[in-house]
Amino acid sequence: MNASKHKVMNSPTIRRMPSYLHWLLRMQQIGKKTVSTTELADYMKIGWIVVRKDIALTGISGRPRIGYDISRLITAIRAYLGWQEVHTATLIGAGALGSAILGYDEFAQYGLRIETVFDTDTLKIGKTVHDHPILALSKLPDVFRQNPPEIAILCVPAAVAQSVTDLLVRHGVKSIWNFANVTLNVPEDVIVQREVIAGGLAMLSVKMKNARGAQFEIED
Amino acid sequence: MNASKHKVMNSPTIRRMPSYLHWLLRMQQIGKKTVSTTELADYMKIGWIVVRKDIALTGISGRPRIGYDISRLITAIRAYLGWQEVHTATLIGAGALGSAILGYDEFAQYGLRIETVFDTDTLKIGKTVHDHPILALSKLPDVFRQNPPEIAILCVPAAVAQSVTDLLVRHGVKSIWNFANVTLNVPEDVIVQREVIAGGLAMLSVKMKNARGAQFEIED
Repeated sequence: MNASKHKVMNSPTIRRMPSYLHWLLRMQQIGKKTVSTTELADYMKIGWIVVRKDIALTGISGRPRIGYDISRLITAIRAYLGWQEVHTATLIGAGALGSAILGYDEFAQYGLRIETVFDTDTLKIGKTVHDHPILALSKLPDVFRQNPPEIAILCVPAAVAQSVTDLLVRHGVKSIWNFANVTLNVPEDVIVQREVIAGGLAMLSVKMKNARGAQFEIED
Repeated sequence: MNASKHKVMNSPTIRRMPSYLHWLLRMQQIGKKTVSTTELADYMKIGWIVVRKDIALTGISGRPRIGYDISRLITAIRAYLGWQEVHTATLIGAGALGSAILGYDEFAQYGLRIETVFDTDTLKIGKTVHDHPILALSKLPDVFRQNPPEIAILCVPAAVAQSVTDLLVRHGVKSIWNFANVTLNVPEDVIVQREVIAGGLAMLSVKMKNARGAQFEIED
């Protein structure tokens, strides 16, 4: 790695970007051209200083009394996240969580194209969830032979998450969005983003504690 | 607020706490008494300096060559998150996402007790999801009259999220864990934690960009 290119970034900023994008796309749809820091702060329920720091990271600066150009800001956020190009994905495990993710229609706007869905449950295979046909996991090697997807969205039970991961890696998947509550062992060139649903509950709990005792201020 | 009591905290640390807790509880179950920073760092896939900083925030310090006492660390993390006591909750919206959350059996260990589940879909009302009977949303005022739950887990479509929130607030709910992709307007004394599923995708995307270009280092 080239040390001179290093920028240390904060994950809360990255996690906020889709919310900015969501709102900016809606504003663009209704014909709005510019947006102020204050409007963004109101929507995000965070301080305007935080908003300004977030936006500055995308390389965009606002103009006094005019604010940010919405169209340029959308482009900058997409570039910042690498969402200006399409990323192909597969989803493994069409249970409740998998179905919820397949129903999330904003992913298309974020450049995520879920091309295949796999499960091992014979009752599910052959059915569709949100227009995605569910394929047998045993077919995965054949389906991925030509062109494996970039991302696998892992929605399987924790007990089988590692063996499914091994299968995915063996067939060329390089990035895993892991919703199973387990740490995955992968080769060094495979990227894993682990989602821990209880992380949000932890945030809420600390805010509740804060409200009772005024002990903490959370920087998020 | 008493400024002298202020501590500014980092949300990534708070979000990581349930993962530490998850692993420590498992280690305790198999009879392990102590854990080293290195073991925790290996499990979490983060640097040991980050682990040490995280743990220090709970007020626990390790002993050289012995590490942390697992039982004390579990107690400290629970205290840090306010999870040593039970928090009552209701879940609104028993669709795919709501069902996934109801199936997450670790919440009990985190002190979250989901007491009621509401929906407006007459096909769902009267059925059960993971042993929770689904009640008609119209019954909510009666059910909450005596003793409203502390937390509402909001899994309804974005279009109705604000009206359901107004109903919840009117009936005494003070904390909302919001999975609807929308900003909620609430009175000042009501706490909202918004979950944005695409936030995790943003993290994964930046890591993928990083791997390609070595431009960024994410601090998470």
